[in-house]
Amino acid sequence: MSHTNLPPVSETQTAQPHPETVDLSNQVVGVLGGTGPQGRGLSYRLARAGMRVIIGSRTTDRAQAAAAEIGMGVIGLDNAQTAKRSDIVIVTVPWDGHDTTLESLREELASKLVIDTVNPLGFDSKGAYAIRPPEGSAAEQAAALLPDSRVTAAFHHLSAVLLMDPQIEAIETDVLVLGDSRADTDTVLALADCIPGMRGVFAGRLRNAHQVEGLVANLISINRRYKAHAGLRITDV
Amino acid sequence: MSHTNLPPVSETQTAQPHPETVDLSNQVVGVLGGTGPQGRGLSYRLARAGMRVIIGSRTTDRAQAAAAEIGMGVIGLDNAQTAKRSDIVIVTVPWDGHDTTLESLREELASKLVIDTVNPLGFDSKGAYAIRPPEGSAAEQAAALLPDSRVTAAFHHLSAVLLMDPQIEAIETDVLVLGDSRADTDTVLALADCIPGMRGVFAGRLRNAHQVEGLVANLISINRRYKAHAGLRITDV
Repeated sequence: MSHTNLPPVSETQTAQPHPETVDLSNQVVGVLGGTGPQGRGLSYRLARAGMRVIIGSRTTDRAQAAAAEIGMGVIGLDNAQTAKRSDIVIVTVPWDGHDTTLESLREELASKLVIDTVNPLGFDSKGAYAIRPPEGSAAEQAAALLPDSRVTAAFHHLSAVLLMDPQIEAIETDVLVLGDSRADTDTVLALADCIPGMRGVFAGRLRNAHQVEGLVANLISINRRYKAHAGLRITDV
Repeated sequence: MSHTNLPPVSETQTAQPHPETVDLSNQVVGVLGGTGPQGRGLSYRLARAGMRVIIGSRTTDRAQAAAAEIGMGVIGLDNAQTAKRSDIVIVTVPWDGHDTTLESLREELASKLVIDTVNPLGFDSKGAYAIRPPEGSAAEQAAALLPDSRVTAAFHHLSAVLLMDPQIEAIETDVLVLGDSRADTDTVLALADCIPGMRGVFAGRLRNAHQVEGLVANLISINRRYKAHAGLRITDV
């Protein structure tokens, strides 16, 4: 994917902290696997919303290159440094390698608020299908591998194409947020809310993450049938 | 958290790209387990939309009582007679008993278009959670038990409270439709489209039904947190 058409720094907005309980103004958000399409897209949107963002990658060079392309104060570091220096760590690594990457960062991620965005999917000639990890979901795998971190799950259903398109002002979608700690899910809800168009919606405990992750297989089918970049809205909320 | 300043979801909807070739005018729709809240609600909405509806139950008496309450030409029969006399059969039985009910109706359901709506859920002190049947999903269980039927899955995320409320003119939600036959899913899409406010959206093959069924556990969490009757909309479609 080309990402040469990012907007100038002047278009950045100020973060809007959660109106009631959460202050994000001093939080640093790290994005592990941040050089992939989802990671770059989320980094771009968070930086554009005024958040301080670190892109993490296996190699610092690649992270710095991705950060420089986004601009807006985003910096690039290796995954370990990204985890260490961040308050909130978004995991956008590929499912293949999810376990080994997280396991290798256990110390750096201790006490951090981790947001797992990963969708375990398989692909064959009939399209995408949901994979059920032994732990139940990618998020529960993260929780099992990171006993000293505060693991939540969110941002599963975003179109990287829309996230990266600077012409699109608002990402019109709801972000389902899962987790077992009210304080932590409130922070993730606030983070989703700070991106124009996005709205965080609390959608249950981590044990109900699998079907939220797997739903991406359905969105892929929808995208194929309707030539769309489908997202979700929850009605009556 | 305030969600009051969102634009109505309907503003983001485009024209329904749906098959205009499906003719439902001579179709009879049977609803197995039609005396439960979901079954009565769907029967009511389909009858109100002009469809010919038969409510099925284990006993004819209960089916007839539920049909009489709805009126609008709805009749009540036992499940076997309902299956036999219908072209399209919607399955709204409880998950506990899903397998034995369908197995007992294998002959009557042969060649019929079956729409499974069942959500395999468990409940404990922490709320609802998704159950994964050995076949993968309720819909795949139905397909395994009914080799001579045309099994699809849809209508998982509807609020019985909203369906049954006669003051509500339109049920504002998308209906995710799953199945492996294009002709059959087109018919189910058309059936969803005939209820005001509802829109059918093709969401993949039957092998991707589990996460759609299980998502009801998340909607239950959403309903608890936000005191809502949550439904789904798919954006950009």
